[in-house]
Amino acid sequence: MSSYEDLMAFQRDTEALAQVAGRLGWDQETMMPRGAAEQRGEEMGALESVLHARRTDPRLGEWLETVTPGDEVAVAQLREIRRSYERNVKVPARLASEIARVTSVAQGIWAEARANEDVAAFLPTLAEVLRLRREEAAALADGGDPYDALLQDYEPETSGALIAALFDRMRPRLVALREAVLGSDRQPAALTGHYPEAAQIRLSREIARNFGYDFSRGRLDLAVHPFSSGSGNDVRITTRVNEKDPFNCFYSTIHEVGHACYELGVDPDFLLTPLGRGASMGVHESQSRIYENQLGRSRAYTGWLFGRMQQVFDMAPGDAEAFYATVNRVQQGFIRTESDEVQYNLHVMLRFDLERALIAGTLEVADLEEAWNSRFLADFGVAVEKPSDGVLQDVHWSVGLFGYFPTYTLGNVYAGCLHHALREAVPDLDAALAEGRSAPATEWLRENVQRHGARLAPREVIATACGFEPDEEPLLTYLEAKFGELYGI
Amino acid sequence: MSSYEDLMAFQRDTEALAQVAGRLGWDQETMMPRGAAEQRGEEMGALESVLHARRTDPRLGEWLETVTPGDEVAVAQLREIRRSYERNVKVPARLASEIARVTSVAQGIWAEARANEDVAAFLPTLAEVLRLRREEAAALADGGDPYDALLQDYEPETSGALIAALFDRMRPRLVALREAVLGSDRQPAALTGHYPEAAQIRLSREIARNFGYDFSRGRLDLAVHPFSSGSGNDVRITTRVNEKDPFNCFYSTIHEVGHACYELGVDPDFLLTPLGRGASMGVHESQSRIYENQLGRSRAYTGWLFGRMQQVFDMAPGDAEAFYATVNRVQQGFIRTESDEVQYNLHVMLRFDLERALIAGTLEVADLEEAWNSRFLADFGVAVEKPSDGVLQDVHWSVGLFGYFPTYTLGNVYAGCLHHALREAVPDLDAALAEGRSAPATEWLRENVQRHGARLAPREVIATACGFEPDEEPLLTYLEAKFGELYGI
Repeated sequence: MSSYEDLMAFQRDTEALAQVAGRLGWDQETMMPRGAAEQRGEEMGALESVLHARRTDPRLGEWLETVTPGDEVAVAQLREIRRSYERNVKVPARLASEIARVTSVAQGIWAEARANEDVAAFLPTLAEVLRLRREEAAALADGGDPYDALLQDYEPETSGALIAALFDRMRPRLVALREAVLGSDRQPAALTGHYPEAAQIRLSREIARNFGYDFSRGRLDLAVHPFSSGSGNDVRITTRVNEKDPFNCFYSTIHEVGHACYELGVDPDFLLTPLGRGASMGVHESQSRIYENQLGRSRAYTGWLFGRMQQVFDMAPGDAEAFYATVNRVQQGFIRTESDEVQYNLHVMLRFDLERALIAGTLEVADLEEAWNSRFLADFGVAVEKPSDGVLQDVHWSVGLFGYFPTYTLGNVYAGCLHHALREAVPDLDAALAEGRSAPATEWLRENVQRHGARLAPREVIATACGFEPDEEPLLTYLEAKFGELYGI
Repeated sequence: MSSYEDLMAFQRDTEALAQVAGRLGWDQETMMPRGAAEQRGEEMGALESVLHARRTDPRLGEWLETVTPGDEVAVAQLREIRRSYERNVKVPARLASEIARVTSVAQGIWAEARANEDVAAFLPTLAEVLRLRREEAAALADGGDPYDALLQDYEPETSGALIAALFDRMRPRLVALREAVLGSDRQPAALTGHYPEAAQIRLSREIARNFGYDFSRGRLDLAVHPFSSGSGNDVRITTRVNEKDPFNCFYSTIHEVGHACYELGVDPDFLLTPLGRGASMGVHESQSRIYENQLGRSRAYTGWLFGRMQQVFDMAPGDAEAFYATVNRVQQGFIRTESDEVQYNLHVMLRFDLERALIAGTLEVADLEEAWNSRFLADFGVAVEKPSDGVLQDVHWSVGLFGYFPTYTLGNVYAGCLHHALREAVPDLDAALAEGRSAPATEWLRENVQRHGARLAPREVIATACGFEPDEEPLLTYLEAKFGELYGI
């Protein structure tokens, strides 16, 4: 064997073990009995130690010095292996294992604190997670900005400054749109009625299938915080059910189907290699968001959904156009994951600023709830009244995901670009969506984005698919047009 | 740290990783999408390589030479670590990893072949699994008997010759009892009616809880072949549902609850150590069997179950004594796991002889179906008509479990001994069982068997609990008395 083949064989086992860790994470949030949480922390810690040892194995350093890539794919594989190696050798094994152990347990503590509306019960754990991640960030940053160092895990080649600049450009137009929409005379009705859980789940499965999700290589379960998990041929999704709000279930499903289709759509040649996954969290989110919003919340698709819901549920007859407005209704609310397209990115910007301050050390965990609530009041004009509507609503910080939130807005920005290109490439897309079929869109995305996996850098994937450099303009133009029309502004 | 503490810290991570492997196995049989099978094989193979490397780590050899145990528990821990180390250094890493990879995929192939009644589709895989396990057995045996070497993984301190002698002693009395029972004029009625799946599962949960299963540290799911999985604080069980035969579901549940309570009942000080599990598969099966048969199929408990089933299902009113006879009905049948107490061990003896011949090389895989069918006809007087009733019925061989089957009968023998001692220790047990409460029995078992984990050797556990050396006499006496009375012989 050449040393490239040796390296890839070694890497393949590492990737397989990383999949095992992912499966454990899925289990923890869907299946694991509550009393197993502490033991699971030890199990995850042990597995993380193994992964860390492999990712920092001195042989990797030698291979990376001596191997000559034979083709473009090998160049990309080596680039990803080098990125991982150079990152991981900076983090002591002890710290990597402790982060795995602590965040595994922290998630359960967060879930319980959230259920009990008890911020105080979560703060010591959050402080511990933050301390560990700051220690890691300092090690990764090598004297540079610690938050930038954390960002690289989710979105290579970006920085806090670039994101802050993007957000500064987006913010005024989003605020103006939000104010115009909320101040409009034309306000869509809310959905009323009762939508039984079993029927919601059945229709979710149908929707997932229509969007191209392959149930022979995945499954759909319930979770507190919907997520997708896994790569290759085992990519699982979760959703949640509120019997008064079926959109929560359906659009969580479509969102996670977007993530899952990305992983399932990667070139099978990249299975269990560093290229066999999405290019970044931002590109990942572009897939989930375009499925969920630009496709799933389009007039054409909601027309089909309206008809289907009338068959499945005990609904009053009504008007597809009013239903479209209801699906896209903008209203004051607290929860990011339930937010409309207009306000969503404002939720993200709040979290970005707070977590950047936490990592910088200019905001203490003890002051976080107050900081959240006062910022929320300023941005959204309403006071948070319970922690599950505020600082406890998201799982991310409990599991140490600092630097992750901004990728949601990057994803929206990329989705805006892709949607622009998709509509030009597939001009009759609405005819398919009106029949509940998203195949022409999902096929274009598979061909132009998904199959590349991590072979191209994040912005490169989008630029290659779109034929132009990604920026926020297509997203903002789309939002202003869509909601301008809906709200008569 | 002393070197004993170093050793135990190292071992703790190994135990945690072994738990991870167990969780993957559970996932594979309950949750995993079908299309993930091949990838899962790679994941299991990678994890098995890690485990094998840890179990053969040269540091273990050094520790085992230099560590001085401080107390009796440490002596037992070192005994178990030594047993594992000395076993595993005999098996090349390449072979261990290949066995994990092949058996992981083989299970899916078996399940599909069984569903399609297609022995030929399974034989190449079985041949491959057998080839690998024979290679492993030869490595383990060091010139001794390969089948004896495999037995040690499931039942230390026994041998094929000891088991054959035990079976030779049991066989004539079991055959005689079977013939008398099947020839009796008094034949209990079969259960009739329809028992919906959801209600069976609900009642299964209630039964599991009554038998002491702690759902905060476990869960109940469906599987083709019911099993229990895990140690410590995450011990999961599975059952299966046949809407015409609710006993299949309930007694599978009780059986697996017995296994699970054993793991959950081990001294918490032994968590994630070599003592933190059952002493052997035979002792394990003694717990599942005494829960299932001596307790669950007793006149007192079936009296409660009869009343409860009348509340839960649409059943005709009837007679508790007739129900007791129906639960314990002996009839000709093909399936080991659905067999009555009288014939069960004859099913095991058939498998023991066949697998011993497969490992010895005196029976070829190509001839296995014919060997099974002719032996079955000789032993049970009926011809196997489809492979799912015959050679394809059990998962064991597909996953390489050669040497496992005889531990089922050892478990029955041990359960007979424990039941004898239990009835003397808790004379009013029937009063509790008649109310559906097995607590007095399960508490005695926890105190006298389960809490010891693997601290005592298999026969030592039983002898300590019972106050006498285990043999087959209590089981055979119990069976002859119970079925003699039921069948008027």
